[in-house]
Amino acid sequence: MRVPLELRRAYKLLNHGPTTLVTSAAHGRTNVMAAAWAMPLDFEPPKVAVVIAESTLTRELVDASGEFTLCVPTRAQLEQVYAVGSVTGREEDKWALYGLKAAPASRVKAPLVEGCVGWLECRVLPEPDVQRKYDLFIAEVVAAWVEDSVWKNGSFDFEGAEEHRSVHHVAGGLFFTTGERVRARGTGKE
Amino acid sequence: MRVPLELRRAYKLLNHGPTTLVTSAAHGRTNVMAAAWAMPLDFEPPKVAVVIAESTLTRELVDASGEFTLCVPTRAQLEQVYAVGSVTGREEDKWALYGLKAAPASRVKAPLVEGCVGWLECRVLPEPDVQRKYDLFIAEVVAAWVEDSVWKNGSFDFEGAEEHRSVHHVAGGLFFTTGERVRARGTGKE
Repeated sequence: MRVPLELRRAYKLLNHGPTTLVTSAAHGRTNVMAAAWAMPLDFEPPKVAVVIAESTLTRELVDASGEFTLCVPTRAQLEQVYAVGSVTGREEDKWALYGLKAAPASRVKAPLVEGCVGWLECRVLPEPDVQRKYDLFIAEVVAAWVEDSVWKNGSFDFEGAEEHRSVHHVAGGLFFTTGERVRARGTGKE
Repeated sequence: MRVPLELRRAYKLLNHGPTTLVTSAAHGRTNVMAAAWAMPLDFEPPKVAVVIAESTLTRELVDASGEFTLCVPTRAQLEQVYAVGSVTGREEDKWALYGLKAAPASRVKAPLVEGCVGWLECRVLPEPDVQRKYDLFIAEVVAAWVEDSVWKNGSFDFEGAEEHRSVHHVAGGLFFTTGERVRARGTGKE
């Protein structure tokens, strides 16, 4: 079940570097694409950085709305993640084409992708120079959600939930799943 | 063995979102710290983005030299990764304290950390506004190296090399290892 996550913990959805789905909404339509180049940028208020290439429909919708979401998809969605990262929404409705379902977000118009395990609702911070030069978008996270069945003691735990593991794109449809949980002994825990 | 990697493939060292070690050199000394907030920013010429907090020794050395390296550490180095991310180099020589060995880089003065599986030599691109506002450094990759024993057909393959798996920090010393290699069927490969 999707449950709210305190904003100060929002960075934990991206700290391990998973590939994300970026959703956007403007001009009466929505889109979804994959982005491996996304990371946290600050703890509180939480910020993120994500690369959204020029000429994509997502870029156009984000430029128009100043909003997007970053969703953390799963191994069960591997085919869809790769597909929405390879095809443009200009020619196809990727939601329908790949069977992805949108759910309403709480603070932004861009929708949440159902079946993911984490969701960040984001508002773009105006940094036109880096947007133009590097396709880099900096945004504040204004709401966060997590799938509670894989969230234990304040972080993801995919043990026994193999199909819910987040994924990490390498190139050309090759991914790593998020692997084993290991803890440095220096922490004195576990 | 550490072997050169073509620059156009350099993004593949970070595309899966591993936690990195950042090395730096200036004023006759070097330092090493951990950074989970690092990602590729472009393919060719390759660029990266990394967050280097204000007030750290690494920030001071990177500001002075305009250079750093991003190294991809392994599960075998988990304790060291966590330690160099928790302690400041201002008070301790972290190399000696944690038994990390430095090797010379080829194009920058910042050293490479031995025992890692990937290395990027980076030159800072001057973006003072985002450096100041977000602690965000954008850099061009000027040389790249990979550990050839875990590099197969143009990407990491950690099968049978468990201790060489890259790692992904979550928070407070909790990490995920890089998991299983999986390929989207849409690619028509494997």
